[in-house]
Amino acid sequence: MSQHPTTAADFGLDDNAPRYLGASRQASAGSVTLFGAGYDGTTSFRPGTRFGPNAIREASDGLETYSPVQDRDLDDLGLCDLGNVDASFGPPEPVLERVTAAAAALVGAGLRPVMLGGEHSLTPAAVRAAAAAHHDLVVVQLDAHADLRAEYLGQPNSHACAMRRCLGVDGVSALVQVGIRSGTRQEFAEMREAGRYVAPRPAALADRLATLGERPIYLTVDLDVFDPSQLPGTGTPEPGGIDWAVFESLLSVLPGERIVAADVMELAPTLDPTGVSSILAAKVVREIVLRMGPR
Amino acid sequence: MSQHPTTAADFGLDDNAPRYLGASRQASAGSVTLFGAGYDGTTSFRPGTRFGPNAIREASDGLETYSPVQDRDLDDLGLCDLGNVDASFGPPEPVLERVTAAAAALVGAGLRPVMLGGEHSLTPAAVRAAAAAHHDLVVVQLDAHADLRAEYLGQPNSHACAMRRCLGVDGVSALVQVGIRSGTRQEFAEMREAGRYVAPRPAALADRLATLGERPIYLTVDLDVFDPSQLPGTGTPEPGGIDWAVFESLLSVLPGERIVAADVMELAPTLDPTGVSSILAAKVVREIVLRMGPR
Amino acid sequence: MSQHPTTAADFGLDDNAPRYLGASRQASAGSVTLFGAGYDGTTSFRPGTRFGPNAIREASDGLETYSPVQDRDLDDLGLCDLGNVDASFGPPEPVLERVTAAAAALVGAGLRPVMLGGEHSLTPAAVRAAAAAHHDLVVVQLDAHADLRAEYLGQPNSHACAMRRCLGVDGVSALVQVGIRSGTRQEFAEMREAGRYVAPRPAALADRLATLGERPIYLTVDLDVFDPSQLPGTGTPEPGGIDWAVFESLLSVLPGERIVAADVMELAPTLDPTGVSSILAAKVVREIVLRMGPR
Amino acid sequence: MSQHPTTAADFGLDDNAPRYLGASRQASAGSVTLFGAGYDGTTSFRPGTRFGPNAIREASDGLETYSPVQDRDLDDLGLCDLGNVDASFGPPEPVLERVTAAAAALVGAGLRPVMLGGEHSLTPAAVRAAAAAHHDLVVVQLDAHADLRAEYLGQPNSHACAMRRCLGVDGVSALVQVGIRSGTRQEFAEMREAGRYVAPRPAALADRLATLGERPIYLTVDLDVFDPSQLPGTGTPEPGGIDWAVFESLLSVLPGERIVAADVMELAPTLDPTGVSSILAAKVVREIVLRMGPR
Amino acid sequence: MSQHPTTAADFGLDDNAPRYLGASRQASAGSVTLFGAGYDGTTSFRPGTRFGPNAIREASDGLETYSPVQDRDLDDLGLCDLGNVDASFGPPEPVLERVTAAAAALVGAGLRPVMLGGEHSLTPAAVRAAAAAHHDLVVVQLDAHADLRAEYLGQPNSHACAMRRCLGVDGVSALVQVGIRSGTRQEFAEMREAGRYVAPRPAALADRLATLGERPIYLTVDLDVFDPSQLPGTGTPEPGGIDWAVFESLLSVLPGERIVAADVMELAPTLDPTGVSSILAAKVVREIVLRMGPR
Amino acid sequence: MSQHPTTAADFGLDDNAPRYLGASRQASAGSVTLFGAGYDGTTSFRPGTRFGPNAIREASDGLETYSPVQDRDLDDLGLCDLGNVDASFGPPEPVLERVTAAAAALVGAGLRPVMLGGEHSLTPAAVRAAAAAHHDLVVVQLDAHADLRAEYLGQPNSHACAMRRCLGVDGVSALVQVGIRSGTRQEFAEMREAGRYVAPRPAALADRLATLGERPIYLTVDLDVFDPSQLPGTGTPEPGGIDWAVFESLLSVLPGERIVAADVMELAPTLDPTGVSSILAAKVVREIVLRMGPR
Repeated sequence: MSQHPTTAADFGLDDNAPRYLGASRQASAGSVTLFGAGYDGTTSFRPGTRFGPNAIREASDGLETYSPVQDRDLDDLGLCDLGNVDASFGPPEPVLERVTAAAAALVGAGLRPVMLGGEHSLTPAAVRAAAAAHHDLVVVQLDAHADLRAEYLGQPNSHACAMRRCLGVDGVSALVQVGIRSGTRQEFAEMREAGRYVAPRPAALADRLATLGERPIYLTVDLDVFDPSQLPGTGTPEPGGIDWAVFESLLSVLPGERIVAADVMELAPTLDPTGVSSILAAKVVREIVLRMGPR
Repeated sequence: MSQHPTTAADFGLDDNAPRYLGASRQASAGSVTLFGAGYDGTTSFRPGTRFGPNAIREASDGLETYSPVQDRDLDDLGLCDLGNVDASFGPPEPVLERVTAAAAALVGAGLRPVMLGGEHSLTPAAVRAAAAAHHDLVVVQLDAHADLRAEYLGQPNSHACAMRRCLGVDGVSALVQVGIRSGTRQEFAEMREAGRYVAPRPAALADRLATLGERPIYLTVDLDVFDPSQLPGTGTPEPGGIDWAVFESLLSVLPGERIVAADVMELAPTLDPTGVSSILAAKVVREIVLRMGPR
Repeated sequence: MSQHPTTAADFGLDDNAPRYLGASRQASAGSVTLFGAGYDGTTSFRPGTRFGPNAIREASDGLETYSPVQDRDLDDLGLCDLGNVDASFGPPEPVLERVTAAAAALVGAGLRPVMLGGEHSLTPAAVRAAAAAHHDLVVVQLDAHADLRAEYLGQPNSHACAMRRCLGVDGVSALVQVGIRSGTRQEFAEMREAGRYVAPRPAALADRLATLGERPIYLTVDLDVFDPSQLPGTGTPEPGGIDWAVFESLLSVLPGERIVAADVMELAPTLDPTGVSSILAAKVVREIVLRMGPR
Repeated sequence: MSQHPTTAADFGLDDNAPRYLGASRQASAGSVTLFGAGYDGTTSFRPGTRFGPNAIREASDGLETYSPVQDRDLDDLGLCDLGNVDASFGPPEPVLERVTAAAAALVGAGLRPVMLGGEHSLTPAAVRAAAAAHHDLVVVQLDAHADLRAEYLGQPNSHACAMRRCLGVDGVSALVQVGIRSGTRQEFAEMREAGRYVAPRPAALADRLATLGERPIYLTVDLDVFDPSQLPGTGTPEPGGIDWAVFESLLSVLPGERIVAADVMELAPTLDPTGVSSILAAKVVREIVLRMGPR
Repeated sequence: MSQHPTTAADFGLDDNAPRYLGASRQASAGSVTLFGAGYDGTTSFRPGTRFGPNAIREASDGLETYSPVQDRDLDDLGLCDLGNVDASFGPPEPVLERVTAAAAALVGAGLRPVMLGGEHSLTPAAVRAAAAAHHDLVVVQLDAHADLRAEYLGQPNSHACAMRRCLGVDGVSALVQVGIRSGTRQEFAEMREAGRYVAPRPAALADRLATLGERPIYLTVDLDVFDPSQLPGTGTPEPGGIDWAVFESLLSVLPGERIVAADVMELAPTLDPTGVSSILAAKVVREIVLRMGPR
Repeated sequence: MSQHPTTAADFGLDDNAPRYLGASRQASAGSVTLFGAGYDGTTSFRPGTRFGPNAIREASDGLETYSPVQDRDLDDLGLCDLGNVDASFGPPEPVLERVTAAAAALVGAGLRPVMLGGEHSLTPAAVRAAAAAHHDLVVVQLDAHADLRAEYLGQPNSHACAMRRCLGVDGVSALVQVGIRSGTRQEFAEMREAGRYVAPRPAALADRLATLGERPIYLTVDLDVFDPSQLPGTGTPEPGGIDWAVFESLLSVLPGERIVAADVMELAPTLDPTGVSSILAAKVVREIVLRMGPR
């Protein structure tokens, strides 16, 4: 490894992948750094998120680097895309370890990782790496599903348990659950009692964040938070989701400079032959990256 | 036949079909009872609703049994799914007779039938059975199309005539037409003159229902009431439809305990390779069933 | 040629095509006249608009001729559909010339042309014909993309430059850009400085039009102004677009009698296997034609 | 009507359709004349042949007019394409009557009709017209299915009964069944006992035809005679069918000058998103037309 | 459990599934008995075989019960279809145990199980049950891939190791590998040295079987033995496979009365939107079942 | 540039692309070197080959590196994949120049280029580079179409003219046209008179090659030489093509050590949602590369 790690190999990643729009293959100081994790081994309904990370990259070609909503341009950031964690199928545990290792190495090098999924069960692994470096981490979850099951069909690392696992990570101080519209009666009861549930409105999210002070944030976006009409290409679409304008408005109340890491999960591109799911996911990534801003 | 009919065979239905999420194959007293009718013989534009009933059942696997909006759970009802009417193609008349026979038998056994279509031309047959048992029946129609033609291309039982036929059923006392956005000039004139047209807003629907007293209700949902972005998998999608939130709000003003029968029609699942049309249809069924509640 | 040109051959068009709903193959005095131009030779991301014009015609079969929103019926107009310009691939210049020739001939015969695309790069060619006959022409653009590049990958007639080219047409006095949500920083700066940018709200559009007096209007609709959920079948879908209700409201503030020509561009039907993109495009055409009204 | 009928209207056909490659809209003396009949009202498994005729025409654009196998060129024939019979859904009887009327008018005008389907149940209607004019007609059937049922689900005009109905037409003297690989035990017993079954090999077909002398021939091709790998776009694909080379070899032993009428049925184009089913069907039409030759 | 187990519940199976063409839900003495196992947790390339078993059943509706090649009819057998093993995702070990348990119970009740997959990794589990009851079992494998890896990406129960695992089952005396056309250099060397490789020709297969005496046979069909043109709907299609005629000829040299169990694996139906993969798989099942014959 | 050029940048290529199975990003001495050229600007019927090169790379993941037919393994070669020529749309001339430049640089560095298309019009550009270095070059074309037009719709660099252009390249001494089954009467006459036409049989090809001595070979494969059942994902599929076994047999008579350059063109992957077209194309590449062998 070089003194200052900058390449895919330095972080245990595989660079055999296309790059996201305008991103470099070489990390520069403090840059937002994309990496993919295409694992779908615990998907319960419709598999296919293994193809998510590269589909996001390919679809990014149809976008501009400039965001008129934020008035920011990717060309003004040192965005970097280092390829993928080795992750496709089999039991989740080794994949979780590789995600934690890669994310920890990136964080350790002063970079801000943004993971492209892949199923949601990988989020706790990246949260673990972020929380180790950034204490009192707040996990902000945009999602259709509560993901609070203790286990699902005997598997504690199922994507139906992703947030339950995040709650158990050392250094995580709060969970903010935005847009949840599917779960068991117990999950909803718990969310409400714990004050975790936040309606998908910017004011509600801003209010909740105001109670949490200046803590660092891990932003996890399960793309099924979007309405299935916006993004049909995901394993368990749930009618009644948010649209693009709501997403922009929610993002606008998140303090970008405090987002130390993020992920965009659960794109299953082959389920949507029109390709618009991948395009929307790619634009979600662009807006998050721009929100995180230059260091 | 057993003294108390409870099985598919007791009602002349074919149980060679998957079951809807959490439903039993055996009817219990007063339970909401699903049956399918996959007929598309008069479809004028794009056929395929023959595959609707089973697609709804398969897609229901991706849903939870709990509805956070209603705070009700299918597990608390005795939901039953008895399979399908024998119905695929050919002239509509024999199929209409079989639908009436099955629905009448279910109503006669004290059950509340919910038909899964299949094309909308079958609705009058189920309405006939419901109206025979429940006088002064009000038919509440959620639909994109007026369906008030006297006949269509020489066929009085076309799906373009479904509501005209319902108006001719003995015992039907009113028709409430919600969300209609396509029809002839004559159809719109008639709807408006007769006070049948109701804009797709909960207050408008509540106002109209208030004028109708405590009469029993037959709820018929032509899924093309939804915007094509929400549900592309239907024969004659019509831009400008409702979204999920509007559907929930309309349902919330319907008195569930007075819905004596219902149907969810016109899903043509193979027209939507993403599968989200079937998933939305399955959630529509869940919300209606939960709204009808336990007996 | 007959003394009064009325047929496809009279205007250099090829009538080997289906006809739009209810349209005649013979032009009558002053009628709105459809013609197709299925060219996609400069498409940068996903090709396929060459199949657009005929897909719009076929999809129109699923619509009614009556618009309840406008309370107008195609049967009360002398709508005409004369087939297609010879245009499929190769360099854009000869196609642009053929479009200008056909549009000029139609305008010259006192008809009001509505072009079905085909990619947006053809719009300047039709605008040229309209502006030659109708001075001080205002181009009203509904679009996701600014299309103001001077050239794109060396091609000044790329669809990314369509509006830049329109600005250079003699007789064009103003450009109104509605719904733009993608472009470079420079394009947005220019749009705003020039007062061209109009938010996709009817009041904003009405305000802007009020400043422009009674000038004739060319209405160009790049279908990607719609949200990708509404119309996935286009080459460069951009999340965050308008829905059907907004389109109707925008159309309602346009003075139909002053629309001297129009186009509906960028449908790539095979990208959307559900067919709803073509259906929406066909309804857009119906509403524009009805808005233009009888002469 | 003109003294010599030549246009769609003269034959009760609707010319609102694209034209087959190189075909004229005006019949010339003795020409092979295409007409479509897009009816699928009795389809038992997967509907969609209503879209067959126009899909064949559109796909023909990708073909050359010249056949190297036959060394003949469409440009040397006066091929004509007059549009479609009015036929989409509802009971089959009125459609059968319209097909017989159109085919009889064409035969009566000295033309040689080639029908584009649409489901196979329409074949008896066209055979009826041909047999009335050409006595001792031999029907040569290329098909996967025997189609010899007396009725199917109560419908004697089902496509499962098409050949049974042909056998009952006055003037039909023999039925030659080539490539049949699906049917009931009874159907196969009958085919074999009656000497009707012919293996899909040119020598076998030539031998059988040799026993039938110089009689006129009606050639009916149910496209499911092809293997599903060659043509997946049909309602009831049956593994084990013929490929293109076998089709060419079978066609080569048919005396083209004695084919007085023909049809190409059962294309359901939307079932095959690759489009190759329509392309193969279009090439089948070209080869049959060239085989029939100029008059 | 009843004295003579006959129902799904008796064998630990879930009957919430459609039934294969003409099959009963109740086992009769000695009958061939279908059960599904829709697991795809180790699939390395393209997932989706979890949907295989039910897709085979639904597609069987388009087939006749009679096979003209074998002159046998399903109606003359007591075919039974008992539903599915609980098996979708997660690690393979518990699924393997459930498959072995179900197959052992079926064999123990004197029935002949035919498993519908699901991925090939499940075959060793069913072989285990068959070999325990039928000594000196010969496994006949029709497949594109050798599947002889000791492990694959750390997983010994991967579908890439299926035949290696079968070789380790007690009671398996020989493996016959037919149609293999993909593997490592080592796998091919081993197959050839061990005399296991058999070209996909009936004479070659008959010769090899002749050396193995009258031993009982387990027939396992990985559907990717077929050419991708015949069956694109599978995870790892490999060009150069067999067609239907070859399959029939191979089956014809297998002694049906000695096939004590069988399976048909690796259908991934959603990968083939035309549906012909499922139809071919359903016909494969019919031909195998008919070949096994009545007891 | 380094003294010995080895990287994408050294050859003017863009390495933002996945790599073909097992290929290195760095050229080694004499290695076969893949590069992509995804241009489809002159495609006349169905566009989409712009996505071909990367689809071949992604599909290669499902293949083994070992070919049992050739008993050779990619791991024993120094295969290299250097990314893509900048080439998507617009007029063909600049793209042709870039292809010639890249291919000439590769040949000049002692490498053997294999181009992944992209449309067939690019072949003359690569042939030009090969012929400049290897005199008396023989072009062996596997194709459905003759491609001998002097121009097509005014464009001399159309893919319908690819072989006419190759004939005009300095240094090309012969053209061998294998498998052609579509063209004009004139094209077939010329092919036959010039002795260029070779039936798709190995003996015929071997005979023809024997007359040409030991000259260097450029092998160009238009993938539509395959039957549409094998490869539907191409712009102008033509029924009656070769299958995989024939391709292997044709390749086996080509002297691999004399193939100095090659290409695999006309994959349009999005036209085939099953993905098998891309998989077949990837296997074609593997077999050609292995046939060319190590240097």
